[in-house]
Amino acid sequence: MPIVRVEMWPGRTHEQKRELAKAITDAVVNIGKAPAEATFVIFEDVAKENWAQAGALASDE
Amino acid sequence: MPIVRVEMWPGRTHEQKRELAKAITDAVVNIGKAPAEATFVIFEDVAKENWAQAGALASDE
Amino acid sequence: MPIVRVEMWPGRTHEQKRELAKAITDAVVNIGKAPAEATFVIFEDVAKENWAQAGALASDE
Amino acid sequence: MPIVRVEMWPGRTHEQKRELAKAITDAVVNIGKAPAEATFVIFEDVAKENWAQAGALASDE
Amino acid sequence: MPIVRVEMWPGRTHEQKRELAKAITDAVVNIGKAPAEATFVIFEDVAKENWAQAGALASDE
Amino acid sequence: MPIVRVEMWPGRTHEQKRELAKAITDAVVNIGKAPAEATFVIFEDVAKENWAQAGALASDE
Repeated sequence: MPIVRVEMWPGRTHEQKRELAKAITDAVVNIGKAPAEATFVIFEDVAKENWAQAGALASDE
Repeated sequence: MPIVRVEMWPGRTHEQKRELAKAITDAVVNIGKAPAEATFVIFEDVAKENWAQAGALASDE
Repeated sequence: MPIVRVEMWPGRTHEQKRELAKAITDAVVNIGKAPAEATFVIFEDVAKENWAQAGALASDE
Repeated sequence: MPIVRVEMWPGRTHEQKRELAKAITDAVVNIGKAPAEATFVIFEDVAKENWAQAGALASDE
Repeated sequence: MPIVRVEMWPGRTHEQKRELAKAITDAVVNIGKAPAEATFVIFEDVAKENWAQAGALASDE
Repeated sequence: MPIVRVEMWPGRTHEQKRELAKAITDAVVNIGKAPAEATFVIFEDVAKENWAQAGALASDE
């Protein structure tokens, strides 16, 4: 069942997502003892103008 | 209050989303005994390159 | 891949969740044309003191 | 740690998101007693055709 | 439609959540120009042992 | 900014979550090129009676 959701700023290449999905799934399988087939990873790009820290949009920095 | 969130790969037509929203709301109202007016359905399209099973991106299959 | 997330106030019985999971999955399969095996439904109970409409907690109504 | 996620229909300007991020962060810091640096606000635009109330898509109203 | 989701460590009192829900809703209504009746705030407590920064669980700090 | 959310069935020990948070953060830092300090991992336990595949609750299997 594990569902892993990764929110990052845009800019990761397809190859980076491919490697990340593999590495995260390996961690969940090896450490969390979940079956690989039941492990899902979902990426969500969050634009800098949609993300704020300490009250300031990242796109304004 | 029920909020239902549906994540699917892109490709569903407007008509399919319309029917799905209706069918899911009916289920929540009839089985879950929630008022229809208070029942929300939100669709989120997840691109195949943002979704992995067993460590492999769906867009690579 | 469809992942459906249902947030409701507590109070639904196990039997109601069982029926809701079945009805929602049927809708996703029949209308959304997704395979049943790849369709997941997750329930999340949200306590009334953790939910507000129009600025007022539901537990205060 | 506070993470605040704001889902709204599209149409808010960059300036509105800037003000909203500031006002929400202030509330979390002043009322919730969280440090500003550790407070994050994420905006997600939800298109009207992806959002239904009472079983009807908002884009059909 | 705005749905605001607030994830914080446990420890906020009912009164703090009440004030936060009010302040956040006011911000969404005044700045985001959404109707109060259509604005929802949901709180989710995240235990420190379920939250990590820089790879370390907050409960280990 | 990366925020990683891990939903799993209950049963993972504190030690397993500690190792998982570390391994996932390492992957995000090394592959995704994000700073460790800005990388967050959140665990959410989902009870088997709140999770269904193919229309059947996991607690009924």
